Amino acid sequence: METFEVRPIGVLHCELMTRQETPRNYDISHHIGVVEVFPEFHEALDGIKEGQTVVVLFWLHQARRDILKVYPRGDRSRGLHGVFATRSPVRPNPIAISEFEVLDITENGLTVRGVDILDGTPVIDIKKKI
Amino acid sequence: METFEVRPIGVLHCELMTRQETPRNYDISHHIGVVEVFPEFHEALDGIKEGQTVVVLFWLHQARRDILKVYPRGDRSRGLHGVFATRSPVRPNPIAISEFEVLDITENGLTVRGVDILDGTPVIDIKKKI
Repeated sequence: METFEVRPIGVLHCELMTRQETPRNYDISHHIGVVEVFPEFHEALDGIKEGQTVVVLFWLHQARRDILKVYPRGDRSRGLHGVFATRSPVRPNPIAISEFEVLDITENGLTVRGVDILDGTPVIDIKKKI
Repeated sequence: METFEVRPIGVLHCELMTRQETPRNYDISHHIGVVEVFPEFHEALDGIKEGQTVVVLFWLHQARRDILKVYPRGDRSRGLHGVFATRSPVRPNPIAISEFEVLDITENGLTVRGVDILDGTPVIDIKKKI
């Protein structure tokens, strides 16, 4: 089947520099960060309001794409699981979905709370939460 | 910034052939469909169970990528919104997020309920719901 080209629309800035210090998921994170949105996409932010929750998609550029089974959260007692049954960053298309609270809308993009993603990770989409 | 290559891991089969008959979002859909997963990725499904909810990501290959503002749900009375403030299929990287109930796990992939995506749309990821 045809492949498709993903183009980053921004990049995440935060204090999380290693996997070890990164919360497992957004729902347990209180970290604050900045979703920088590149100038050519700023117009697409119009209508986002402080206090709302946004869904942010990332391309986990450091994650392996060639592994189909993992120990969930590294716990070997639970046995190997297919990556599609998990939230592991390891997967054929290493896309992560986070939900962040919008604290501020700035010239650069969005200041957000709930960050569970490493500093420098490419942002590929932002959506309204249903 | 560098771009990335998305490779479909499957394709959706369902009765939805036109935008007009497609529900706005998964949360109001009762349509049943089959998420076909290509054989080389079957192993990645291990651990998915009937009755659970899975998050499925699609690449909306027919959606325009060059529009940054839309009338949400075509309603002109609400004014133009930036696509990142909406769930519009139109966006720089046309990725859709759906949540489906798994009805059956078959040789081909997953039979699911809640389909809000057109027949033939490429599937790019499946995740556990948090």
